[in-house]
Amino acid sequence: MKEIHEAYAWRYATKRFDATRKLSKEQLDKLLSAAQMAPSSYGLQPFEIMVVEKDDLRKQLQEAAYGQPQLTEASHVIVFAANKKVHEALIDSFVQRVAKTRGQSTESLQDFRNMMVGSVSGKTEQERFQWAARQAYIALGFLLSTAAIEGIDACPMEGFNNAEFDKLLNLEQKGLHSVVMATVGFRSTDDKYAALSKVRKTVDELYTFYK
Amino acid sequence: MKEIHEAYAWRYATKRFDATRKLSKEQLDKLLSAAQMAPSSYGLQPFEIMVVEKDDLRKQLQEAAYGQPQLTEASHVIVFAANKKVHEALIDSFVQRVAKTRGQSTESLQDFRNMMVGSVSGKTEQERFQWAARQAYIALGFLLSTAAIEGIDACPMEGFNNAEFDKLLNLEQKGLHSVVMATVGFRSTDDKYAALSKVRKTVDELYTFYK
Repeated sequence: MKEIHEAYAWRYATKRFDATRKLSKEQLDKLLSAAQMAPSSYGLQPFEIMVVEKDDLRKQLQEAAYGQPQLTEASHVIVFAANKKVHEALIDSFVQRVAKTRGQSTESLQDFRNMMVGSVSGKTEQERFQWAARQAYIALGFLLSTAAIEGIDACPMEGFNNAEFDKLLNLEQKGLHSVVMATVGFRSTDDKYAALSKVRKTVDELYTFYK
Repeated sequence: MKEIHEAYAWRYATKRFDATRKLSKEQLDKLLSAAQMAPSSYGLQPFEIMVVEKDDLRKQLQEAAYGQPQLTEASHVIVFAANKKVHEALIDSFVQRVAKTRGQSTESLQDFRNMMVGSVSGKTEQERFQWAARQAYIALGFLLSTAAIEGIDACPMEGFNNAEFDKLLNLEQKGLHSVVMATVGFRSTDDKYAALSKVRKTVDELYTFYK
């Protein structure tokens, strides 16, 4: 476990992974647990996550990701897919989860349920999807920061054919749409990107303080 | 610094902060550094972050956030605002930052610049804004996960009048639109939400494995 600032300076968007190195089960579990524990609006988690190791499927995903080497060289390909329609059934299944976890009746949660349904109903389908996608990005952030602290390399990637990914992973029939992925594993010693200085806005460029 | 899984189990969306406790400068800097170091598409960071301590401004933000107590009880209010128009000027300023950081000429980065301009031009203004907002959510994820590990409480909040926040923080004239905030500080011993069991999808509900 690395010191946090050191970990965030060490991480970079890995282009070339060492294809011979795989995450241990313990390492993978830490990443998956981080994304699972990430907060989301109301706790709804309006997304699912696909974890791909299978070689032939990775080759197909690679074709749908413009041939980028990470898809086959990384240890695992982790695809985040947001719910296309955040509807009452999703909220009801969440309410049941709350009731079960906290030993409450679903009846006692009706006000909470109706508040969520009301909030969601006020949004267009497209707005709900964008909102669901943003929740998935919080989980992506948790996965990436945790990876860095655990000394695991990762590359967040948006450059792929989302519709093609949806087909390959059967997301359409689950009411999901792929939004972003993280390839994870260990950097290759050949990756020249590892040595480049990190480019970030300065504190003054990024932050405004109201004291 | 807490062990990661323990930290993520410990954190929760804090409703009531202890208004007498403030983050130290070192603690605040760790959170700001985490959001600053978070990755974004191409490294563009198409967002800015407002850090509010000022009492009267917090009261005004609270009114625009339906009176939620975190706005005045937390140590700091941190508002993420995405660029409403991701345009060539933003890309050019990024290219200059890359050139300066890595000791390259901007001329040598023309292909990279044109690739980004081409990619952005293919999107509608609304699509670009949504894409910018998602990048801000990765930074939010980094800030929240780091807070947990550092033993700092936080509450991610989307429930506020974004247009009103934009006015109060002068975001409109900077071409920004507020998308989400995190209130940060230390939980009050009175916050009954701290004791509630965390509700999360199980591994089987959240993940699909392709082995």
